[in-house]
Amino acid sequence: MFRLKQESVTGRRGELVTPHGTLQTPFFMPIATKGAVKTLSSFDIERLASPILLSNTYHLWLRPGMEAMKELGGLHKLMDWKGAILTDSGGFQVFSLSGLRKLTEEGVQFQSHIDGAKMMLTPELCMEIQRTIGSDICMVLDVCTELPATRKALEQALELTTEWAKKSKQAFEKTRSGSINPDAKLFGIVQGGTDAELRERSAHELVEIGFDGYAIGGLSVGEPFEEACAILEKLDPVLPKDKPRYFMGGAQPHEIVGYVERGIDMFDCVLPTRNARHGSIYRFVHDDLSRPDFYEVVHATNEKWKSSNEPILNSTGKYECAADDELKRYSMGYLRHLFSVDEMLALRLATMINVRFYLELMERIRIRNAGV
Amino acid sequence: MFRLKQESVTGRRGELVTPHGTLQTPFFMPIATKGAVKTLSSFDIERLASPILLSNTYHLWLRPGMEAMKELGGLHKLMDWKGAILTDSGGFQVFSLSGLRKLTEEGVQFQSHIDGAKMMLTPELCMEIQRTIGSDICMVLDVCTELPATRKALEQALELTTEWAKKSKQAFEKTRSGSINPDAKLFGIVQGGTDAELRERSAHELVEIGFDGYAIGGLSVGEPFEEACAILEKLDPVLPKDKPRYFMGGAQPHEIVGYVERGIDMFDCVLPTRNARHGSIYRFVHDDLSRPDFYEVVHATNEKWKSSNEPILNSTGKYECAADDELKRYSMGYLRHLFSVDEMLALRLATMINVRFYLELMERIRIRNAGV
Repeated sequence: MFRLKQESVTGRRGELVTPHGTLQTPFFMPIATKGAVKTLSSFDIERLASPILLSNTYHLWLRPGMEAMKELGGLHKLMDWKGAILTDSGGFQVFSLSGLRKLTEEGVQFQSHIDGAKMMLTPELCMEIQRTIGSDICMVLDVCTELPATRKALEQALELTTEWAKKSKQAFEKTRSGSINPDAKLFGIVQGGTDAELRERSAHELVEIGFDGYAIGGLSVGEPFEEACAILEKLDPVLPKDKPRYFMGGAQPHEIVGYVERGIDMFDCVLPTRNARHGSIYRFVHDDLSRPDFYEVVHATNEKWKSSNEPILNSTGKYECAADDELKRYSMGYLRHLFSVDEMLALRLATMINVRFYLELMERIRIRNAGV
Repeated sequence: MFRLKQESVTGRRGELVTPHGTLQTPFFMPIATKGAVKTLSSFDIERLASPILLSNTYHLWLRPGMEAMKELGGLHKLMDWKGAILTDSGGFQVFSLSGLRKLTEEGVQFQSHIDGAKMMLTPELCMEIQRTIGSDICMVLDVCTELPATRKALEQALELTTEWAKKSKQAFEKTRSGSINPDAKLFGIVQGGTDAELRERSAHELVEIGFDGYAIGGLSVGEPFEEACAILEKLDPVLPKDKPRYFMGGAQPHEIVGYVERGIDMFDCVLPTRNARHGSIYRFVHDDLSRPDFYEVVHATNEKWKSSNEPILNSTGKYECAADDELKRYSMGYLRHLFSVDEMLALRLATMINVRFYLELMERIRIRNAGV
């Protein structure tokens, strides 16, 4: 259940109830693709105070596999994670990672990127897997078309996406009883590339089927920020106000602000974690989120930090979490040293700092949207 | 200052006072070669309840370098580590890691293993570096002879080791005032290979100079356990009872028990951390430490753990630390999964488990030696 509490030019402010907690929107989901946010434990995520994380159907299906997942009691138990979990359907991974693919009405045949084994993912199986994982928010299986594509190809992909969305919903309902998380939610995924008309059609068709929330997929694939914004503006009147909207895929901090202004409530992004592992650290510079330069990215490997006693956590007092006690202890000089001698701790500290930045960003956005 | 409180066939039980805490002996030092125990933060080590860690003069000298170390305020401040620190002198690293070496009475010339730069380490410089690091326990610079060696070569190395020990002590005293840790201790290092006579001579000469403690170097280089034990038995009557004795280098858990029985008070060892990163986990099996099979090593990557809900911490209730709350949460099934998908968290959890095992081992040894 979603409660929209406030709406203004800066965006929406709401509350999403899940079987593992009520989440304040807009929110960001740290990515635990294979059952762990890279370098971090569930305890670390708790300390950073994220109420949700995102994992991946495709990857967990392959490893540990659903037999083990069942015996291990689902992903919440496996990770000992008490917060909410959203799982990507794995569609994107099947279409981007795996070898030879064959698309049929029933589903997509492909080869595992691990051992080349032939596998087939169908909307029905996709729901079964997410039920076994025990996600709180499941995603329908969608068709991801490689771009550039002809309009004909985009249209066909869209038709199949809608068809699979219907099948997904039916399968989701059928698997409810007996599931370890029967009150899970199901989200549809709007596709259609950068074609405004197709996007609107996709949204209409999904709303007709009816989902607990709506994701916008197939963006964040290299298109300019303005183009993504234009699509969100087109979709705004089509998507029901009383359902959460999830922008799938990467977004820089200033882009998140822009997407929130266009009605988005939920985000995931590999940038904070991936960039951290390369030594790029996000930091706030200004309080005013409407300035595109409200943040900066500094490079921890830079010589300039060699003798720096400046704390790695450039805290502004606007967000507090249990991890701060630890993060305040270490200096940029230490972080730079750890990177220079290839200590894994460097990656972990940088990851915590960046995930915390994205969580603080969302908290600032929520305050902004509440108009307090 | 060292207080020997108890002595029996199972070993010694004492207390070592350092500028950063009073340590109960015998104890084990987790290895933070380059300023971090691989995969762990100072906070993690605190939670595991180790009162001391070991770092390395050679590695810190090269990176971050002593100029940065000075500006960063020493290693305690750099790591924000409140416990004690012992630093290896770097002799072993110069002799094993670096390129072309030239040994003179003054010191050892060598090439940096990082950039090939020509450098020279002298007993005096070695003390200066450890004073800059701010170690609580400094080690003299010793000569590590490659084995096998002729008796003549061993004798010459020994003479130089004694000579350098004298110079080290003088330099250590000279650098006391103005140091960030003026009450640091200095340990001598007994050398002499597996030659009992040379070992005794080395110990006598060091005791004559007078140190705060005595290390036994040059063992744990592939010699049988019995041979190391024989040397410790020879040294026992030569080394003063009222000074701590430190066995340098690797030791399996049952070997540590054996060395403690032969009078050793201090240990370091890469095995718990290195083995952890390969998925080998130490666990207690029996309470009786005199049984060589009181522990086992299990392989977290093994198929048998695939669906296991058994906690990674096989706690026996004989040791408790703040990290237990986190370690009790994860299952062997999760750890196996994390290893199988190459998540760094696997290495970190395994490292914590193994360091905790060695710390618990020492606690059990202390209880055994106290005869309670």
